[in-house]
Amino acid sequence: MNTEKKIKTLIVKKPLKLDCGKTIKDFPIAYETYGSLNSKKDNAILVFHALTGDQFVTGVNPVTNKEGWWSYAVGPNKAIDTNKYFVICSNVIGGCMGSYGPSHKDPNNENIFGTNFPVITINDMVNAQYNLLNHFGIDKLFSIAGGSMGGMQVLQFISNFPNKSKTVIPIATTSSHSAQNIAFNELGRQAIMADGDWKDGNYTSNNNNPGKGLAVARMAAHITYLSKKGLQEKFGRKLQEREDLKFGFDADFQIESYLRYQGSVFVDRFDANSYLYITRAMDYFDLSKQFKGNLSDAFINTKAKFFIISFTSDWLYPTQENKDIVIALNSVGADVGFVEIESDKGHDSFLLDVPDFLNALKNFLDKSYSENKE
Amino acid sequence: MNTEKKIKTLIVKKPLKLDCGKTIKDFPIAYETYGSLNSKKDNAILVFHALTGDQFVTGVNPVTNKEGWWSYAVGPNKAIDTNKYFVICSNVIGGCMGSYGPSHKDPNNENIFGTNFPVITINDMVNAQYNLLNHFGIDKLFSIAGGSMGGMQVLQFISNFPNKSKTVIPIATTSSHSAQNIAFNELGRQAIMADGDWKDGNYTSNNNNPGKGLAVARMAAHITYLSKKGLQEKFGRKLQEREDLKFGFDADFQIESYLRYQGSVFVDRFDANSYLYITRAMDYFDLSKQFKGNLSDAFINTKAKFFIISFTSDWLYPTQENKDIVIALNSVGADVGFVEIESDKGHDSFLLDVPDFLNALKNFLDKSYSENKE
Repeated sequence: MNTEKKIKTLIVKKPLKLDCGKTIKDFPIAYETYGSLNSKKDNAILVFHALTGDQFVTGVNPVTNKEGWWSYAVGPNKAIDTNKYFVICSNVIGGCMGSYGPSHKDPNNENIFGTNFPVITINDMVNAQYNLLNHFGIDKLFSIAGGSMGGMQVLQFISNFPNKSKTVIPIATTSSHSAQNIAFNELGRQAIMADGDWKDGNYTSNNNNPGKGLAVARMAAHITYLSKKGLQEKFGRKLQEREDLKFGFDADFQIESYLRYQGSVFVDRFDANSYLYITRAMDYFDLSKQFKGNLSDAFINTKAKFFIISFTSDWLYPTQENKDIVIALNSVGADVGFVEIESDKGHDSFLLDVPDFLNALKNFLDKSYSENKE
Repeated sequence: MNTEKKIKTLIVKKPLKLDCGKTIKDFPIAYETYGSLNSKKDNAILVFHALTGDQFVTGVNPVTNKEGWWSYAVGPNKAIDTNKYFVICSNVIGGCMGSYGPSHKDPNNENIFGTNFPVITINDMVNAQYNLLNHFGIDKLFSIAGGSMGGMQVLQFISNFPNKSKTVIPIATTSSHSAQNIAFNELGRQAIMADGDWKDGNYTSNNNNPGKGLAVARMAAHITYLSKKGLQEKFGRKLQEREDLKFGFDADFQIESYLRYQGSVFVDRFDANSYLYITRAMDYFDLSKQFKGNLSDAFINTKAKFFIISFTSDWLYPTQENKDIVIALNSVGADVGFVEIESDKGHDSFLLDVPDFLNALKNFLDKSYSENKE
């Protein structure tokens, strides 16, 4: 797949010391933008993607030819209105859509990194992306926003750069990855590593691809993105193009063929080693630990206005974990709003057409932007 | 592993027509008993095991040398008191502890069945086990009890044989497998089938074992047996024998090594094809559908006394699905008691030391047994 010309890349010259102790330099950050940066350069929103997202937030993703992952939320007249705001999104380092990651070559020996790529963290990701501000000459962002792992990056960014965004929107996220979520990520990693074609991460040089293992990892994750109630209402026990059970191991139920489909299409667009690296970064995320257990201290230096959003049926990043962030912000007197949106669509609600969510997001942004102008 | 002499087996001569349309005959049912059958033969309790259980309910399992799966509940002076009751448990057909299953030889060609074993259902399982009553000369059981898939068998048994048990105890179960539960089972099956050593189910004749895939399936299931809160309290973000994160893909967190361990020990005691067959039977279970959508009709002919038990933190078979059974029983005026036990231990609560549960179970049985005697 020749994707080179579809991907805009910033080469970061400046060395970046990673949390693991290693230093990277001259590395690519792949990014995309939507809308126009105004003359005062005060209308930029940096959007952070989740585990399997990329820089192609909205419109048609030129590499996959599918809709961008946040098309419901971002675009002309949408919640994040690209007629008004300049939206920037970059692929995280460790990813597989152009930013520096395990499928790149190790400059020391010209071999593909594989699992020799350094283990990266959410902190490393945002420190890498910070270079985009200089690139665009933006002194201060109007907002930073993201859901799930995107929300972790939002929290880490404002903690690292407290004066670099006027508003801050963490969505369906956590300040510290829970044991259950680490467990599901570990399950995905083990599924990949169990695939004989993974070859300790050296599958590319062997012309292999641990696609079966990656598909299983995706299926596992996909179940966690939906709610029990939502699955029951959408699929229940509906059969797949058959009158009755077939008494075999083909997909009898629609939920089975749906999961198999989700697994198979994912393999076409995602790299197994990137899946390992990015889930590891999520599991390592513990903002509270960075401040000796006091999460409030992460936000003590910022005057930014926060808006935190959770969803009733999200059992991966439940409302309580989002509220814990609100509580930490309250205890340092931060400017913070919070809303729990009623939705049966589970964790995926932030990616879907959930009008209450999209309206809340739009109202917060537009109101904050007009206050900004007064 | 020479397990033959440790396993008691009843050879069922009588042909059994399976739901898939095929008929089996001269097949083995492996069983174990605890306590003594009294002279009136009215103190027998038939216990049904869950997905990965077997006939070795309590004491040391002679094959695995581990504690029996229901040792907290069954034994002298325990909730199911083997000083008082005669406990019978058999390995389900499709299983791998001696009952007829995919690791047996096909009598037609002497090849190991593998996936040529007929797909079986919960109904087939209980119809096979029913033969144990004749074997022991028991006209009517005192009770039938089981959790999870064991509970499904309890419900199916009393529906098929409404006069064959005085009391009925379905625990942490459902009358119809939900979409989310089908999804998790399908995930497990796909993990097994993704293992290159599965060889379309013919791994035994190839001297292979899809152990990596089976371990991943077990890990996935294991996460669903525990509650989010329970996992957080037990493991949280505790590290595994290290001062800090190692920035690699070994198990940094205790929850990771715990899951890996659960996966690896499971492979030693369970057969991958049996895992496929038994999960399939669970997914196919829909008692309501057997009665044209009216679950109450399943219980219309029984005078048995029911006691239904659920657990607050069980998200696999949540209280509501257990209550749906109570509602169906109420609507035909059945004698039914129900209790939701407070526990953070998730679905596994029924297997663990949860005193409120064990007391409730003991009280129901002993009270019913003494009424029986009056």
